[in-house]
Amino acid sequence: MSFNITKTSQKRVVIVGGGFGGLQLANKLHQSGFQVVLIDKNNHHQFPPLIYQVASSGLEPSSISFPFRKLFHSYKDIYFRLAEARQLYPDKKVLQTSIGKIEYDYLILAAGTTSNFFGNKRIEEAAMPMKTLSEAMGLRNALLSNLERSITCATSQERRELLNVVIVGGGATGVEIAGAIAEMKRYVLPKDYPEIDPSNLHIFLIEAGSRLLSGMSAESSREAEKFLRRMGVNIYLNKRVTDFLEHKVILEDGMEIPTRTFIWVSGVRANEIANLPQEAIGRGGRILVDAYNRIKGMENIFCIGDQCLMTADKHYPEGHPQLAQVAIQQGKLLAENLKRLERKKEMRPFHYKNLGTMATIGRNKAVAEFNTVKTQGWFAWILWLVVHLRSILGVRNKMNVLLNWIWSYFTYDQSLRLIIYAQKAKEVREREERESKVHWGEKTPE
Amino acid sequence: MSFNITKTSQKRVVIVGGGFGGLQLANKLHQSGFQVVLIDKNNHHQFPPLIYQVASSGLEPSSISFPFRKLFHSYKDIYFRLAEARQLYPDKKVLQTSIGKIEYDYLILAAGTTSNFFGNKRIEEAAMPMKTLSEAMGLRNALLSNLERSITCATSQERRELLNVVIVGGGATGVEIAGAIAEMKRYVLPKDYPEIDPSNLHIFLIEAGSRLLSGMSAESSREAEKFLRRMGVNIYLNKRVTDFLEHKVILEDGMEIPTRTFIWVSGVRANEIANLPQEAIGRGGRILVDAYNRIKGMENIFCIGDQCLMTADKHYPEGHPQLAQVAIQQGKLLAENLKRLERKKEMRPFHYKNLGTMATIGRNKAVAEFNTVKTQGWFAWILWLVVHLRSILGVRNKMNVLLNWIWSYFTYDQSLRLIIYAQKAKEVREREERESKVHWGEKTPE
Repeated sequence: MSFNITKTSQKRVVIVGGGFGGLQLANKLHQSGFQVVLIDKNNHHQFPPLIYQVASSGLEPSSISFPFRKLFHSYKDIYFRLAEARQLYPDKKVLQTSIGKIEYDYLILAAGTTSNFFGNKRIEEAAMPMKTLSEAMGLRNALLSNLERSITCATSQERRELLNVVIVGGGATGVEIAGAIAEMKRYVLPKDYPEIDPSNLHIFLIEAGSRLLSGMSAESSREAEKFLRRMGVNIYLNKRVTDFLEHKVILEDGMEIPTRTFIWVSGVRANEIANLPQEAIGRGGRILVDAYNRIKGMENIFCIGDQCLMTADKHYPEGHPQLAQVAIQQGKLLAENLKRLERKKEMRPFHYKNLGTMATIGRNKAVAEFNTVKTQGWFAWILWLVVHLRSILGVRNKMNVLLNWIWSYFTYDQSLRLIIYAQKAKEVREREERESKVHWGEKTPE
Repeated sequence: MSFNITKTSQKRVVIVGGGFGGLQLANKLHQSGFQVVLIDKNNHHQFPPLIYQVASSGLEPSSISFPFRKLFHSYKDIYFRLAEARQLYPDKKVLQTSIGKIEYDYLILAAGTTSNFFGNKRIEEAAMPMKTLSEAMGLRNALLSNLERSITCATSQERRELLNVVIVGGGATGVEIAGAIAEMKRYVLPKDYPEIDPSNLHIFLIEAGSRLLSGMSAESSREAEKFLRRMGVNIYLNKRVTDFLEHKVILEDGMEIPTRTFIWVSGVRANEIANLPQEAIGRGGRILVDAYNRIKGMENIFCIGDQCLMTADKHYPEGHPQLAQVAIQQGKLLAENLKRLERKKEMRPFHYKNLGTMATIGRNKAVAEFNTVKTQGWFAWILWLVVHLRSILGVRNKMNVLLNWIWSYFTYDQSLRLIIYAQKAKEVREREERESKVHWGEKTPE
């Protein structure tokens, strides 16, 4: 296999990952004399801030994803390849991927993070994370079929397990999915499942830290907590989940919560790539970079977004929060810096401009912060809607999401509660097996 | 496990399958003094006539499916259960399902058909059918990832295999998917995949009979064939596919077509249920029924739609075509007949009223027939759109489909070309394994 891209006189920039950072970088490098190659393991860009609404049957997966190839229709200098990065050969300036090797002049890692199960295999096996669209769709299917099952299951024990939803992790995602499920319980359950007494559906939100939304102000945390409690979510703070056994979430203090809907949104760790020196790896597997997002000890390999850790930004000595805005701003600056490098100019160091953070809890309920300004409730919620709608790619998707939101706002209901799995063709299954074998160390079938 | 439905004084009608026939029947039985229990292996009604547009990335799965529970919100006398029928116990008036046994006063089989591979295991393994939404989504994913792969694959042999699309079966579905892929080749491929020379993408439509759309008039067949040939589809008539070996479709006459996109829409056979007497099974596994859709030799077990074969209708001595209209009309009449039975009145025999048949080939291209009137081209296409739009359930879905169609009509493009698989939670996987064990013969975990 090969990338099948002919090397031109242009320098080649290989970008690993088409998330907020990688996509921003690619777009900014368009028509600047580089040959840009973007690789991603999906054929589409995703919009993580709304993935939880897919899990709660509020949005279609397609409304928050956009095919890379469609994005690059008119960009002849940007190439997309469906592939996974495996291993670096810095001296050879070669990247090993699932579809073969590719040479680069500049390599940018923007592969983001993956769910962190802190090494507990049982938790990893049983828990449902919500990082990707496939996971969100899987969660949607599981939620719905567990409700179905709770009506027909054999024992009252199993019924309790099926009607307990346990969410581990009180960050934005945890808060948002808890709110969404609480609204499902309130508005949808009585209509869809008359056989289920809503008061038997319990939603638990477990946070190891002392407050929800630790990334935001204490005030916002309090508000979010108040909103969620009012919506009937059982919030447990300062509780660490240590294990999962026989359909039971086990907490450090010995408490157990029986459940078959075990949602895991507690912490992430940076995606790995083989052959990076150990000293380049920091907290949470994040790759250490200098003020220019250049990887420690590397000549022309950079890392941006959630995957990297930069301590050079004076206001963020601990590194930046893992947010879309950071990735976007880093991608933007790196594009400029690469151009400067080519013009033999000095690169400009990165400084994060905090445009604010927000989280939504439910209808008319959100918390938002902009520098000194804090707001909660209805206004914050409208802000949240507008900001997110603006950042979704594609007119059609914007339209879709808006229509969906308006529809559900007035009907209190969606008709997306479908249990569907895509069937995997033999051809595709076999190919995936083959490619998963192209691992670090192993030679590529070329 | 149990259905958890308390038997009332009302007689219980159990309906197996919520397709066109079963759903029509359930709706018509609402408020007529029956307790209606609808079971289906999906939690949603599907709209088969448009499934091919999901496969060709033209429509969202959710736009052509509708959750049963939402349909029955206000119908307190209709119960839905997510389950698969396994076996009949006519003498006990009991139906065995994947979630346990249920007693019935009247049992109606409306489980439709499944793809028929005529006993060839290799074909069954490799071919991609298009009967269900999951299959259509799987096909969409396979189509797109085969295109991706054709750019990076190792050998020119593999490239040819990846760029040949072989469709077996020249019925409506075959004609429609062939047309849709031909349009993809023409309008989407050049923009999305500049690396692929469109002339290298070959579409084959193989039909064992002497003409396409054998269900329609010779005139319509000719028109459809003309349309498709003009769109560059290679049509082979009177060719029987006998095998599939090493990425090659093998024809009876020895011809081979290398392909990794092997679409199978050639014939169906009725879904089976255990314990029916052999003499009740007719052509293509269809269950033989009398003029009242009552199963041969059964007291109060009926069968409607594609799953049954009725030879009593004088204009259709060979049985009815397996079309939505037949199922709908049978469901409607059976509802009436069940009410008549209760009132000790005589049942009325079924006579199919042919409202016409149509198939679409592409933009502005369709064929339609109404009794003596035949029309082709633009007008037929508009008719096709209107008729199908009208029959889709739910305002939201109608709106969605219409918007999608308008959008693609003017943009010649869709942004639905996503490769996504829903991840299966451990809990769900394990449950499915358990339930699949609840088979005929075996006792139910009750």
